[in-house]
Amino acid sequence: MPLPSTQPAERILLGPGPSPVPQRVLRALGAPTLGHLDPQYLGFMDEACAMLREVFRTRNALTFPVSGTGMAGMECCAVNLVEPGDEVIVGVNGVFGTRMKDVMERCGATVHALETTWGDTFTLAQLQAALDAHPKTKLVGIVHAETSTGAHQPLDGFADLVHARGALLLVDAVTSLGGHELRVDDWGIDAIYSGTQKCLSCPPGLSPVSFGERSLARMDARKSKVQSWYLDVSMLRKYYTGGGGGGRVYHHTAPINMTYALREALIMVLEEGIDQRVARHAAMHQRLRAGLEQMGLSYIPSRSLHSLNCIRIPEGVDDAGVRKALLADYGIEIGGGLGPMAGKAWRIGLMGYGASIRNVDLVLAALREILHR
Amino acid sequence: MPLPSTQPAERILLGPGPSPVPQRVLRALGAPTLGHLDPQYLGFMDEACAMLREVFRTRNALTFPVSGTGMAGMECCAVNLVEPGDEVIVGVNGVFGTRMKDVMERCGATVHALETTWGDTFTLAQLQAALDAHPKTKLVGIVHAETSTGAHQPLDGFADLVHARGALLLVDAVTSLGGHELRVDDWGIDAIYSGTQKCLSCPPGLSPVSFGERSLARMDARKSKVQSWYLDVSMLRKYYTGGGGGGRVYHHTAPINMTYALREALIMVLEEGIDQRVARHAAMHQRLRAGLEQMGLSYIPSRSLHSLNCIRIPEGVDDAGVRKALLADYGIEIGGGLGPMAGKAWRIGLMGYGASIRNVDLVLAALREILHR
Repeated sequence: MPLPSTQPAERILLGPGPSPVPQRVLRALGAPTLGHLDPQYLGFMDEACAMLREVFRTRNALTFPVSGTGMAGMECCAVNLVEPGDEVIVGVNGVFGTRMKDVMERCGATVHALETTWGDTFTLAQLQAALDAHPKTKLVGIVHAETSTGAHQPLDGFADLVHARGALLLVDAVTSLGGHELRVDDWGIDAIYSGTQKCLSCPPGLSPVSFGERSLARMDARKSKVQSWYLDVSMLRKYYTGGGGGGRVYHHTAPINMTYALREALIMVLEEGIDQRVARHAAMHQRLRAGLEQMGLSYIPSRSLHSLNCIRIPEGVDDAGVRKALLADYGIEIGGGLGPMAGKAWRIGLMGYGASIRNVDLVLAALREILHR
Repeated sequence: MPLPSTQPAERILLGPGPSPVPQRVLRALGAPTLGHLDPQYLGFMDEACAMLREVFRTRNALTFPVSGTGMAGMECCAVNLVEPGDEVIVGVNGVFGTRMKDVMERCGATVHALETTWGDTFTLAQLQAALDAHPKTKLVGIVHAETSTGAHQPLDGFADLVHARGALLLVDAVTSLGGHELRVDDWGIDAIYSGTQKCLSCPPGLSPVSFGERSLARMDARKSKVQSWYLDVSMLRKYYTGGGGGGRVYHHTAPINMTYALREALIMVLEEGIDQRVARHAAMHQRLRAGLEQMGLSYIPSRSLHSLNCIRIPEGVDDAGVRKALLADYGIEIGGGLGPMAGKAWRIGLMGYGASIRNVDLVLAALREILHR
């Protein structure tokens, strides 16, 4: 007998992502499917790319959504920018830095891990020492928003050190784009990837990326073919920008309806204004933080993201039980700890549309109630 | 000034895909986003995988939708089943066989192309000769439904020849799954990939794949790490099936809403019945074919797919002009020729929900009208 129709519950998504998606974006997602070469669709896609440039604060022509979730964006940057034998430095202070190291190694890179305690961030002096120790480094990969620990990595001055060695700066902004101050051009970032399901308030399924001139030059000078056909930017750029010669060329069938949703979500970002949106994320983080600390809960990272709040689970508290009660009784999802933080941390996301007074006060009230049962 | 909301036109998609998506599937797509570890979501995903097994007609535990469009499924099969230095035979008789060869080579394979004229298909004798010429072959890749030429490759007896050499049979079923007779287990197919945006009548964004026991054994015996982290089945299987030990483990954030749409589309396939659906595709193809041939139009492939009708553009007819008129005056999309067939072929898709009397008679009427202008 066939199954009943798909009727998901209406959760309040305050975990590490996906974040709550406004009705307006869901309606765009469910709009009629167009062909991937339909002029109207190409217009929507071009508009989405133009708005991504605004949100990334970049003039990079090569700015587009990779047809996969956030990790596809990471892999897209790695396979295109790294060649077998390249030396690479990756900042490892959580799950996503660890993963970036793994992805780079699968591209044949020799990865020098720049490590620090999970929850901490890297200093300019640490980066300088790593560059001094590995003078042949061709790329430095760093996580701006470490979703596993909630740590917020400052990036001031990073590009100068990296560029002084002729290397590229690659940044993971999955959990910061659209919620945190992020300036690709001003900060000298050469390549960056993000996800749609965090501060952009769109469902998961696309990974916005942007490549600057230095990255293009690196790709043009490659000796080896990119190991992934699906993520090969030398072909993708012809579809997304008509660049690289020969005009717009079909590559793969893009996820049409996800592009609608991203376009609509980006319109909402720009309607609000990027500065205002960043300020709202900061204010909601402060409001949550004050409430949590009043309850005796403490933050794990030395410098917390606004979009993701990673707190210690108090001694003797049942991790899974609390999260289960939040979901069952309040319809609220928060995240558990990832990797070595499993059982030790809760991750409360306040991302995009989800970063509201309504949600902050509700999750505080719910946690207070459940912890005192 | 912010852009207006995303309001795509309601096209009738009779090209090579995406195909028309029923309202019911679009509504599922636009349902509230759940977390990727939410018990309700995991239930939806498990149900989608179970239904995929029915539609593939397989008992393969490892059957799931890859988080990308069809080409991500091709790449997923390649990176997991092929290791550097492996000898591989790929049937090349169109764009997608050509592409499979490229993808395999990027995995380090030595590819022996089994070639025939575009529009033709391969015989058992041709396959046998290729296997005799290349006795070290570890995998044979073949396109069941060549979307670029409309050719329908019979697969009877293929697996026996391939397995007699200890090789694996990989099949591209992007344009056949859910529209053509396809029996993974009965036909001895070891690995297969498809897309959601063709005969399943779901938007693009996922690529259903299925791996049999022989493929699992090959993957377990790998000497090298899979070059793609995003598509590494040794990790994906832990998320999708809990298999490989250690129970269900988070890998990446799946495209939640696309999974809703796929689940709903698969319910509709099973409500109709697979045999009935295949018969409907055959009947609509015959109806279209009779009408086109009556108009003096002829088919390019020697053995045509039901889901995709590839016809010669008559001498002196303006390819782009006709397609533009179809789109502008009727809101109908058909496809042009791909690669060497550009300007020489039209591709009319009758896939899934789009394979209806209504659409067949309309596109015939529209073509008749436009060709006589």
